[in-house]
Amino acid sequence: MEKILSEVALIIGGELSGDGGIKISGLNRLDMAKEGDLCFSDEIHIEDAKTCAATAVIIPSSYNGEFPKPVIKVENPRAAFAKLLEIFTPKIEIPKGISDKAFIGNNVEISADATIMPFAYIGDGAKIASGTVIYPHTYIGHYAIIGENTTIYSNVTIREYCKVGNRCVIHSSTVIGSDGFGFTTKEGVHTKVPQVGNVIVEDDVEIGAHVGIDRAAMGSTIIGHGTKIDNLVHIAHNCKIGANCLIVAQTGISGSTTVGDNVTFGGQVGTVGHITIGGNSIYAARSGITKNMPEKFFGAGFPVQSHTDWLRMQATLQKVPALMKRISQLEKKISEKED
Amino acid sequence: MEKILSEVALIIGGELSGDGGIKISGLNRLDMAKEGDLCFSDEIHIEDAKTCAATAVIIPSSYNGEFPKPVIKVENPRAAFAKLLEIFTPKIEIPKGISDKAFIGNNVEISADATIMPFAYIGDGAKIASGTVIYPHTYIGHYAIIGENTTIYSNVTIREYCKVGNRCVIHSSTVIGSDGFGFTTKEGVHTKVPQVGNVIVEDDVEIGAHVGIDRAAMGSTIIGHGTKIDNLVHIAHNCKIGANCLIVAQTGISGSTTVGDNVTFGGQVGTVGHITIGGNSIYAARSGITKNMPEKFFGAGFPVQSHTDWLRMQATLQKVPALMKRISQLEKKISEKED
Amino acid sequence: MEKILSEVALIIGGELSGDGGIKISGLNRLDMAKEGDLCFSDEIHIEDAKTCAATAVIIPSSYNGEFPKPVIKVENPRAAFAKLLEIFTPKIEIPKGISDKAFIGNNVEISADATIMPFAYIGDGAKIASGTVIYPHTYIGHYAIIGENTTIYSNVTIREYCKVGNRCVIHSSTVIGSDGFGFTTKEGVHTKVPQVGNVIVEDDVEIGAHVGIDRAAMGSTIIGHGTKIDNLVHIAHNCKIGANCLIVAQTGISGSTTVGDNVTFGGQVGTVGHITIGGNSIYAARSGITKNMPEKFFGAGFPVQSHTDWLRMQATLQKVPALMKRISQLEKKISEKED
Repeated sequence: MEKILSEVALIIGGELSGDGGIKISGLNRLDMAKEGDLCFSDEIHIEDAKTCAATAVIIPSSYNGEFPKPVIKVENPRAAFAKLLEIFTPKIEIPKGISDKAFIGNNVEISADATIMPFAYIGDGAKIASGTVIYPHTYIGHYAIIGENTTIYSNVTIREYCKVGNRCVIHSSTVIGSDGFGFTTKEGVHTKVPQVGNVIVEDDVEIGAHVGIDRAAMGSTIIGHGTKIDNLVHIAHNCKIGANCLIVAQTGISGSTTVGDNVTFGGQVGTVGHITIGGNSIYAARSGITKNMPEKFFGAGFPVQSHTDWLRMQATLQKVPALMKRISQLEKKISEKED
Repeated sequence: MEKILSEVALIIGGELSGDGGIKISGLNRLDMAKEGDLCFSDEIHIEDAKTCAATAVIIPSSYNGEFPKPVIKVENPRAAFAKLLEIFTPKIEIPKGISDKAFIGNNVEISADATIMPFAYIGDGAKIASGTVIYPHTYIGHYAIIGENTTIYSNVTIREYCKVGNRCVIHSSTVIGSDGFGFTTKEGVHTKVPQVGNVIVEDDVEIGAHVGIDRAAMGSTIIGHGTKIDNLVHIAHNCKIGANCLIVAQTGISGSTTVGDNVTFGGQVGTVGHITIGGNSIYAARSGITKNMPEKFFGAGFPVQSHTDWLRMQATLQKVPALMKRISQLEKKISEKED
Repeated sequence: MEKILSEVALIIGGELSGDGGIKISGLNRLDMAKEGDLCFSDEIHIEDAKTCAATAVIIPSSYNGEFPKPVIKVENPRAAFAKLLEIFTPKIEIPKGISDKAFIGNNVEISADATIMPFAYIGDGAKIASGTVIYPHTYIGHYAIIGENTTIYSNVTIREYCKVGNRCVIHSSTVIGSDGFGFTTKEGVHTKVPQVGNVIVEDDVEIGAHVGIDRAAMGSTIIGHGTKIDNLVHIAHNCKIGANCLIVAQTGISGSTTVGDNVTFGGQVGTVGHITIGGNSIYAARSGITKNMPEKFFGAGFPVQSHTDWLRMQATLQKVPALMKRISQLEKKISEKED
């Protein structure tokens, strides 16, 4: 994709200043720009923009100073740039309909407006609604139900009887509905407890790559609407995750844990099982949540405490070596007095 | 699936009390029950059972009190419920035999009683024994050997020369036999050490989703019989994991580590490499095991210590701010005396 | 594979001592050897070698003592053994060319010398260079570019527009180019920020199983040449990882973090986003890196500190219970004096 600068100015309705005939071959960030690139800058970064390697820059209309390169002035450079990004990044064209290289089981309902790519497997009795795209090597189990306008990328597994809502995005290699980790132990031998529940992913959920969400032993593991889950997250059986949560990468939520709405877990958080974590809360990265937690909590550390207490404890621990010296001095003084 | 309550009572051989004509459309836990559901309750939860939203409840024969809903009385409500779960959750039917959409290499031995689903890949010289099911998009490498009555779910990779025992379950997207992380470094450049060993998974092992078990550099990485592994676990090359261990999610075992029998690792545990961890032990979640460990140990913390010491240290650390105050007071008193 | 010992001696150019007619059926480590095996031993382990279960041993020419088994003497036993490993481990034969069970999109360029295995999916406009092998169930997205002599194992996803260099190895189930975790939040509702950048994996990179490397929001997430990444690692959008780094299993690097060359991260390390980590550094396992870090640093702990400080703090914390006793004693003495 290549356009001349004057064309670009027209597209974003901006005011061109400088040579409109120069060719723009890419869009980039200021710090990564190279010749042929167009960048954008707000007023704060304008000095960086002047010296960057880009061929031209989109800057705010409000800027009246000199600029050593061709510019396009617009009211909102970021918004104009976002519009260009869509134009410069050619959409991938995936033909609608069912590939003749896909496998379609018996009694399947697939909307005429859905896309089933080659090597996708759709199990008996599954339903795929309108506008949904199933990428290659994805396994949709028997009687699974996938809502409208959902994208399920390659190598995903949705096991039998699970449900995924509308407008969801599920990234590659994620597994929804694997058996929960449930065993009874007798004389050291572990026997599997049948995991006959399912997983329900509500509407507008996005799930990253390599996420594992286990099916309930009985009933459903639930991911609430609007929740966004990052890569390599583990959600064990029978969890209920609230709406509009953010779960950052490598976090693990143990079994039968209930999480309220609007909870953010930073990266590498862990929780024990069978607890309730109140809504509208934030847990810093690496928090280890070991008990029931109230609403509106800002937690950190392992075992979890309030973020303020955690900061204080971290500061205190740094002072322990100095404390040891002070105690030795006190002991010396007292022992001198005793003598 | 829908049955009337009197039918259900017949199936589980229980004593019906109340309207046998009501329809039961689902089974559920007491705390998640809704209209149409049947639950079970032991004597301890009987008051919850009275007020739950279920339409009917299975209760113990020994209960003689009033009950405000239709009930079925049986000796062991949990066992009766488990029987119903199997009936209410229709089994998925997967036809036996080799799908004509699978890829079968040369000199493969597949039992007539095995199931190879569409898009499975079976490499040259591989052997698949009786009763085993290979799901779609699973890769069985050259000369790999899979035992009897084993289930390998979708998108799994079993690399060449690896062996999986009888009655194993391997969940989706797991990788067995990827190369170990072995490099020699010379002047900052890392050169791969060939990883020519394999992985041996013994009988009755269950492995969760997204587990990575690396092949040995030489010889075998071994997972002992009866061991159960949760999601997103990493087991590095040349590890020997004992029999009947439980390895909870997101745990990582570094290379050449030997683990005894009956060891439980809680979630997000880590170990260094080249150590021996004695059998019949439990390590709490997040333990970081940095040295050889004895048998029959209950460990926690990083660096690992006994669970008792870890609890004591956690309690102690909470008191450090108070300690600091006490020291300041002592210093003040002594300084006053000195004056 | 079976050879008699005299044949083996010829292959490695060694001096045979003992019965050359005995059959060698496998190669093994000293501690795992069984009958029929050949092992190697350096001078340090020679006593273990004498008592091991192997049928014969390769030992150094420099050893002049008695040995109770047949031996082959060579100058460098380890090197001789490595040569035999390649001979005893039969290479897997994968026919060159494009399988007729693969899916090849439009306008794809595949070198005649590349291998595309069954059920691989190659999207429109993708390029696969000479000597490269794409295993089954691997998804190469539209316009992705894969260099020469690269191996991409089964169930891998390389999303659209991503680039992988020459001589790379990518293990099973890894995902390159999934969307970064970017959302804007307004009144509790999270809206996706389009992730229109890509991932560039430079030459000679090895990436383990279940690694997730997210595409940049804009521009590129970059993995520098010669870097080696272990299993289950998360690298978020817009990261720049330097050359010749080692990233051990289960580590997570948050978004827009820049890592210098020759940095080693032990297992289960985490970093915050938007920081710069200087080159030629080592971070111990479980380090939690929370700020910009200089070059040539040896770090540990969370929040990260120097490894020396971390060791000192760990030692100090062990002494806190004793400190508490000493303070109580001091308080008692002073209180006695006051009385």
